[in-house]
Formats: sequence, structure tokens, C-alpha cells
Amino acid sequence: MIEKTQLIATLLLSCADRKGLVAQISQFIFQRGGNILNLDEHVEKEENMFFTRVEWDTEEVKLNRHEFELEFTQLAEKFSADYKIFYSDKKHQAAIFVSKYEHCLQEILWLNSIGELEADIKLIVSNHPDLEPLAAQYKIPFHLIPVSQNKREAEAAELKLLIENEVDTVILARYMQVLSDECEREFPFKIINIHHSFLPAFIGANPYRQAYEKGVKIIGATSHYVTADLDEGPIIEQGVARISHKDSLKDLISKGRELERSVLAKAVKYHLANRVLPFGKKTIVFE
Amino acid sequence: MIEKTQLIATLLLSCADRKGLVAQISQFIFQRGGNILNLDEHVEKEENMFFTRVEWDTEEVKLNRHEFELEFTQLAEKFSADYKIFYSDKKHQAAIFVSKYEHCLQEILWLNSIGELEADIKLIVSNHPDLEPLAAQYKIPFHLIPVSQNKREAEAAELKLLIENEVDTVILARYMQVLSDECEREFPFKIINIHHSFLPAFIGANPYRQAYEKGVKIIGATSHYVTADLDEGPIIEQGVARISHKDSLKDLISKGRELERSVLAKAVKYHLANRVLPFGKKTIVFE
Amino acid sequence: MIEKTQLIATLLLSCADRKGLVAQISQFIFQRGGNILNLDEHVEKEENMFFTRVEWDTEEVKLNRHEFELEFTQLAEKFSADYKIFYSDKKHQAAIFVSKYEHCLQEILWLNSIGELEADIKLIVSNHPDLEPLAAQYKIPFHLIPVSQNKREAEAAELKLLIENEVDTVILARYMQVLSDECEREFPFKIINIHHSFLPAFIGANPYRQAYEKGVKIIGATSHYVTADLDEGPIIEQGVARISHKDSLKDLISKGRELERSVLAKAVKYHLANRVLPFGKKTIVFE
Amino acid sequence: MIEKTQLIATLLLSCADRKGLVAQISQFIFQRGGNILNLDEHVEKEENMFFTRVEWDTEEVKLNRHEFELEFTQLAEKFSADYKIFYSDKKHQAAIFVSKYEHCLQEILWLNSIGELEADIKLIVSNHPDLEPLAAQYKIPFHLIPVSQNKREAEAAELKLLIENEVDTVILARYMQVLSDECEREFPFKIINIHHSFLPAFIGANPYRQAYEKGVKIIGATSHYVTADLDEGPIIEQGVARISHKDSLKDLISKGRELERSVLAKAVKYHLANRVLPFGKKTIVFE
Repeated sequence: MIEKTQLIATLLLSCADRKGLVAQISQFIFQRGGNILNLDEHVEKEENMFFTRVEWDTEEVKLNRHEFELEFTQLAEKFSADYKIFYSDKKHQAAIFVSKYEHCLQEILWLNSIGELEADIKLIVSNHPDLEPLAAQYKIPFHLIPVSQNKREAEAAELKLLIENEVDTVILARYMQVLSDECEREFPFKIINIHHSFLPAFIGANPYRQAYEKGVKIIGATSHYVTADLDEGPIIEQGVARISHKDSLKDLISKGRELERSVLAKAVKYHLANRVLPFGKKTIVFE
Repeated sequence: MIEKTQLIATLLLSCADRKGLVAQISQFIFQRGGNILNLDEHVEKEENMFFTRVEWDTEEVKLNRHEFELEFTQLAEKFSADYKIFYSDKKHQAAIFVSKYEHCLQEILWLNSIGELEADIKLIVSNHPDLEPLAAQYKIPFHLIPVSQNKREAEAAELKLLIENEVDTVILARYMQVLSDECEREFPFKIINIHHSFLPAFIGANPYRQAYEKGVKIIGATSHYVTADLDEGPIIEQGVARISHKDSLKDLISKGRELERSVLAKAVKYHLANRVLPFGKKTIVFE
Repeated sequence: MIEKTQLIATLLLSCADRKGLVAQISQFIFQRGGNILNLDEHVEKEENMFFTRVEWDTEEVKLNRHEFELEFTQLAEKFSADYKIFYSDKKHQAAIFVSKYEHCLQEILWLNSIGELEADIKLIVSNHPDLEPLAAQYKIPFHLIPVSQNKREAEAAELKLLIENEVDTVILARYMQVLSDECEREFPFKIINIHHSFLPAFIGANPYRQAYEKGVKIIGATSHYVTADLDEGPIIEQGVARISHKDSLKDLISKGRELERSVLAKAVKYHLANRVLPFGKKTIVFE
Repeated sequence: MIEKTQLIATLLLSCADRKGLVAQISQFIFQRGGNILNLDEHVEKEENMFFTRVEWDTEEVKLNRHEFELEFTQLAEKFSADYKIFYSDKKHQAAIFVSKYEHCLQEILWLNSIGELEADIKLIVSNHPDLEPLAAQYKIPFHLIPVSQNKREAEAAELKLLIENEVDTVILARYMQVLSDECEREFPFKIINIHHSFLPAFIGANPYRQAYEKGVKIIGATSHYVTADLDEGPIIEQGVARISHKDSLKDLISKGRELERSVLAKAVKYHLANRVLPFGKKTIVFE
């Protein structure tokens, strides 16, 4: 845990693995006055890929952000690395998409209100008016955009809102509309979804009904980044709960509700704290 | 828990649901001197089916087993019920099928040796010689039946052994041979398998490799009755373990080993204690 | 799961164990037209005590509730049984006591609002004004009763409110005041508390600080009935979460918050559904 | 996971926290040809202490071990650090102490035999002859040292054996003798114990009986380093299992058995892989 009064920088970096990466990156930060608070790294052996997340206190860093980035870019180019540096005084700008179920929206809004998440929630988009009062209670602008008639138009309106609000993170909190491929490809943001099953089991519609009919003894929920493949993006977090023959379909939905909000909240928390590095079909999550 | 010196009868019964089933069944047992120790029941609403498991102390039952059964049959016919009565002095007769992995076999043999399971393990069948010493250590006859050349012949030999030994329960403890359809249809026994994934995810070969490549955050194991559909029989028990990006494929296999033996052991324990009622694609497990 | 349109009766009964209890009780209900939907029973061997919970559909019961109870009393007297019969059209009348933390209150109010609990929440009592807006949002009367000056007077005021509102269940949702012994003895209601540790570990003040300093790898929460012994009443439900050296005290409190609300909600749900039979220092929970 | 054919060095180091520790340590290793494979670090804020574990491939390190250590000592002195460097070709030398229960011994011996642990198990010491056959099966020398008559003498004999065998790790696998204070103080080895409760709950004798009488809904097991305070040494690992009113004392012992062996095995595995840094009453476990 980091003290809030500090100004913290966080680096996420990935590149082909080679000798000296940890030494050179940490040395770079140390020589410029950065006090490293946390360093996590991981090597994906089969792919020969290196991933790291470094947090440092910037108090005694003499360079400004722009200068620091300019110099770091030279190091990163040496390794052909992808990287991004985040600063703790600039929260992620988030939008939440919902339909009619309130449990996930309520959880995210509440956790953010007590400081458990690190987001500016700029707006809520819904294809139904039901959750407007909940948005109002947390004083978040609510935009009703029905999608039944013209999906393309609706998505264009959504995209406009997101861009105007400089949103970088879209949270699908049980948003019951499949985003079109075009839309996902155009989105310059991360999209986080919650699927109400233990993926890859029970892909598609009505996963609780599927689970009930299959007679599984454990149900799950999966939060993942959205990509063009439905329910197939890199998994960030999963959770499970035991069930038995005593549980009706309604009981599964009730137990699942608790899973969904908890799993989505964890995934969103990791993402907002810059702890997730997607890599192909997988993610590295530095807890 | 039941005291071992008592002679306990256990009824497993299923029928279409109707009024008075619990009352009439418990009254039947009480009137014949049976002291009911446990009664579990379950109604499957969507299918209007009733399931029950009743245990009673037979000490003051005047009828012998045959007479009791004759009278009970009349009651059962009234309800068109399927039922079976087991007695605690007659353990299940089991056979274990293995290939090269020892962890599941070792677990079952050890648990049975300390009285945790209720089985006479009559024989072990394997398509490899590797685990003969482990069988010897527990003094269980070991039959090497290779299957590479003539599967039909091998299965005929297995079937002969099972029938000769009056086996009623076959435990596939990581037996890496798919039983042929004919074989499963002919088998007059229950067959319990352990699949090394959280079914229905990762059906088929190499589930740990599949899970590793998919990047799931939780792995599982599933024990189920074997039916003609591979990996599709009614699930008895499932278990899960958390993994992360730090876990290599080898780590998944290692964590999975602990899951497999534990999940199989629980499923076998429930089955041997007459706690499982299969019903279509599902099971009722009276824990 | 029970269909809501049915009128269901639920019996909770305990007595010394003897032969024929299940048979006679189920026969009694069946003969009067009751259709038994669920029957759970348990025998506590060391104490020779019998416990049962029976649910039946009353649609074809000819007797009214008073007549049924009069006849059942005769049966219960034969066994010297303690018992109570609840009807599904008469919800429990609950009061919630809180201080400043909202997470438990919010969870109970929300779950009740979506029909997951079965309570009429009549009032909220607090020694601080902070949570009045949350109470208002769910339209539950909020009573501010400070206790700093005169505890005895405050408790008298609370008692008066509870009796006026015919409350039978008091939920202490992180209420940071110890009830006086006199108060607990006088209360003719069930009081359910949530303690923020895995009891009996870390009894008393600041359990998260204690857990943090002890270096445990798992934290817990415990919901129990309140008796004259602080933190010592019969446990209804417990839950746990893994922690590591990475977790600061603040992280423990954050993870604990999720545990507390979930464990309290489960305990309250069991109690309100008449699934809990306290017995000495323990509880029987028919899940 | 590390490939076995590599020669890997592992550093465990702790010191007061200060700027530049990660940078200087990683730079030190890199400059001498070490290829860092893993680096974990942790800062204990309240105590201002820094902990790290670094693994590197030594293939291109030009210095021999002695030279490397001499140079590293100079760096460590600059930070007043405690440290130790381990090499993967030198396994830990372990002894196991047991009484009559076999489950923990069997688990450790089996896991070591399949390469899951990294130990040379040099000897087994017991105060009872019961487990000699199990030791023989794994070809480990078994020493019967009764303790009933003269504890001091027995401990002297044990100490002699441990020193002769150059043991550095003693595993108490349900060894039912309390080691004397003198003994523990003199022991120049790490001692790992398994306590059959969720410490600090149920310290002392008969924890399952205590748990049964308290009516807890979850039981646990705790593996910890042994210090002069009984059941009070730094906790390495804990595990839990759900129980209910249905579980008899015998069922608790049975479920506990599975917990004990699994929790002890995990703790031993972490210790043998040099992943544990004890710190006061706590441990840092770099998983």
C-alpha cells in the first residue's frame, strides 16, 4: 500500500527477454532520483517475453514528466519495449455501461466513493432508464441510449460521448448488448466485461441455465478485456462458488450476483491500479 | 456419523413427487422397528421428481432382509419408485483402473486402508506395469492388461475379471484409455472417472495445456459417472484451485494433481456411502 | 426453493432423541393435509438431542393455524419438545443497529429490497447521525440514540422502540456499542452480531490490528447470536479470505469489509428463513 | 518455474529500507554476469524494513561462489543487511520427526520422491516404532528415540543425529512431543511444525475437540517455524475447510488430516525453495 500524499509513478513495460533488464531499468530510475517502492517482473518462458511493473516515489526526481519520458524512451527503444508510465495524480477516466441489473453498477460506484478504486467515473450509459436514480445518487451523468432500432447510430453516439469525456476505460457492468466488431476495433480504450460463467465453460446466452442443466457443482464468473471475439478476450479475474442439487436456477442467479460484482470489482481495481498487462490471449496481473 | 458396531440399512429411492412420501416411507420403517438415524430428501421441481436417502438402525427390526424387501417393494410399487436398500455389513466391491500416474491410486488405497472409504478393493487393472509395486504394498491383486493391440480383447478380459470378482464399482484413477461404447453399455457396474479439468471447460485431451493457453485464473477437476458420452456423465464432485501468470504448465499439473486425488476421493467416498442418486445428466449428492 | 404464491408453514423443533420422531412428525402433518416440501433433521449424538426443520404446503390443511397448533402441542408434549411454527405470510420484524460503517447496513437493506431476505425492516437505530441518508434512501425510519452520556437511558429508549415495533430480530450491523448484560437478558428477541475476526481468534478490540501483528495468512469474519458473553454467542456463519505480507492493515480492513457484509448477510438470511436452531454454545443451520 | 539443468543462485536479503536497494543489488548481479530470472521485494512500512529474493542464472558469472560472496559481503555491509545465498546444486538437508500419524510423513516423502520438494531427507526420528515400514519403503534411515523416561537424554541423542547428518531443516510432521526450550535455543536449524488448528484459535491440546465444542463453521491448520513460544512461532502457511453441524468430532479429524498434510507440504515447499523470510513474529513468503 502506498501513502496517498506521495506522487507515485508506475511503469508497465513488456519486451523480448534479455539479460540485464531489471538492473538497467531500476538503475535508470535510481540515477534520476526515483525511490523504487515496488518492482514486479515476470518472464513468459515459452514466448521469451519479459514484463515488469515498477512504482517509484517521484519526490526527488529532478526531471519533469516530459523530460523523464524522453530519456526513458531511449532506454525502451534499446529493448524494443512497449511501455507506459502512469502518475498517481492522474486517475483513469472511466465510463460504465449498464442495462437493468444494478448489482455491478452499485458495487463499482460504492467502492469508488469510499476510495477503494482509483477512477474518475465520468458517465454512465444505459439502454434502459431503470438505473438513472442510482446514477443520480452518486451524482454521475446518466445517458440513455436505446439500441433496439439503430445499433450503428447508438454506438456512434456512445463513441462521441466517450471521446468528449476523454474516457480511457469502459466498464461493461452487465451491459446486455454485444458491441459490434467495428465499434470494438475503433474504441481507443480498454473495455472490461463481466461474464456470468466460469469461462470457457458456458459461453453465450443464459450461462446459469446452462450450468443448472449441466448439473455442475461449482459456478463462476469471469472478468475479461473485450476484444473482437465475444467472451474470448484476455481473462483478468475469475471467481467461483459452490452449489448443490438444492440450488434452484433462481439460487444460482442469486449466488452468481455476488460473484459477478466481486469479480468485476477486483478486475476493475487491478486495471485502474495499472496492475494488468495483457499479452496475446492472456494477462499478467501483478497483485 | 454412524457408530460402526450398528447394523445400518440405507435406502436410496426416487419417484415422481406426490403428497405423503416422507410420511409413508418413514412410517413404514418405524412400524417395522427401524430407528431412523438420518433422512434426506429432495424434490426436483422442474421435473416433479422426489429423491430420498434414509438410514436406520436395524437392531429392533423383526423382519429379515428378504422379508423387509418384499414388503417394501409393495410400497415402492404404489409410487412407481426406483429404489435400492444397502446394508452396512456388505461393502461395495470395487476395482481400480490405472495407467502410469500414481497419485489417485495411492490416495484411494491409503484412504481405504485407514477406514475412510467403505470398499473391498478386489483388484487393480492397468495397461502399464508401473504401479504394480504400489498395488503389492496394499496387497491388492494387480492385472496387467495392455490395450495397444486389441482393445476389444482387452475389454473382454477386463469384463471377465470384473464379473468374476462381483465388482459393482469401477474407479478410473487417471486411466488413460477411453472405454468403448459397447463396453460401457454392457458394464453392469457404476464407473467413476476423474477428469483433470473443470468440466464442461476443456473437454478432451491435454486440459492443463488448454487451460494454460487460455490464461484462466482458476483450474479444476471433475469426478463423474461414466456414460456413453465421453466426459459427459453426471458430475458427482468438482474442485478448484487458483493459479496465476507465475504458474508454468508444470505448476498447473502439480496443483492439478492435488485437486484430482482430492476430488476423486470425495466422489468415491460419496458413492461408496450410498449418498449419490444420478438423475438424467445430474446427480443428487446427500452430503 | 419455494414458490412464493404458496402459503408455507415451517416447523423448528428440538427434543431428546428417541425412536420414531421423524415418522410421527411427518405422519402428523400428512394426516392433516400438509404436503411436506422439505424435511431436515439432525441428531447430536454426544448430547442425544434431536433437531428438525419441516416445511409444508398448507393449501389442503383443513385446520386453521390455532387448531393446528393446539393439536401439535399435544404431540410435542409427548416428546417434551421445544418447537415453533412459522408461516410464510408473516415475515420477521427486524431492527438494524449501526454506528458509522455503512457496508453491512447497505448490504442488508439492498438484499431485502430485491427480495433476497424475508424481513420487514421496521427501524434503524444508530448512535451517530452518519447513516441517516442511507436509511432515508430505503425509506426506513432512522432513530438517533447517542449512548455516550447515559447508556442505561439509551438502552431503555431502544428497548421501548423495539417493543413498540414488535421487533423479533435485532441485527447489529457493525454497531460499536457493547449491549449491557441487563439489556441482553431482557431482550425478548434474537440479536445477531457480526464480529470482524475468525472467532475464537482475536476476540476483543481491533481484531484486524491483532491479525496484522500476528502475521496470519487468512482473515475471517463471524456472525453469531448475542448472549451475555461478549463475542461468545453461538456461531451462525463464518467466512475467510487469504492475505499475504503484501497486505497492509488498510488492505486487511478492505478485504474484511467484503467478508463482514457477506457473512452477516448469510447469517441473517438463514435466521430469517427459520433455518437456525441454537443449541447450547452451537447452532444447527439447515442450509 | 526454473529449468532444472541451469545452476541457479538465490539471494534472500533483509535490511533497513533505503533508496536504491533494488537498483544496486540487481546492478551488482548483472555486472558480474548473472542473468536475473526472478526478483521479488517487499517493504514493511511500519518497521521500515526491506526484504528481497533474487534468482539468477550463474552460467556466465565469472567469479566462483567464494569470490562472489566476498564481493557481495561488501555491498551487504554498506546496507547492514542480513543475507544468504543458496545454490540449486546444494539441496537442503532435512530430518522429519513423527509420532504415530502417518499422513504428514507420507505426503512429504511422496512429494519429495516425485521431485515436488527440493530436499535430501537424511533421517526420520520417532518416539514410536509404528512408522518404520513407511520410512523403509522410501529407504530413509529411521531412528526410534523414545522420550517417555528421559527427555533431556532423548533430545541430546536427537541433536547428535542432526549434527552428524548436517541437517539444516527439521520437519515436525505431527510430532507429539514438545521440544524443550533449551533444545530449541540450541538447535542451529530451522524447525517447521504443523499445528492442527487455525492459529491463534485453539492453541494447545485437542484443537479439534475445542473446535467441535465451540461450534465453529470452519476449521484450519497452521504451519509455522518453531520458536521458544509453543504454537507461537512465525506462521508460514494456513489452510481452512468448511464444516457443519453434520460433522462429528471424527469427521473434523478426517477433514483436518487433509488440511494438515496439504498445509505442511506447502510450508515445507516454500522453505526448501528459499522463499520464506521470517521477520519478528511474521514471515514474508515470496510465492
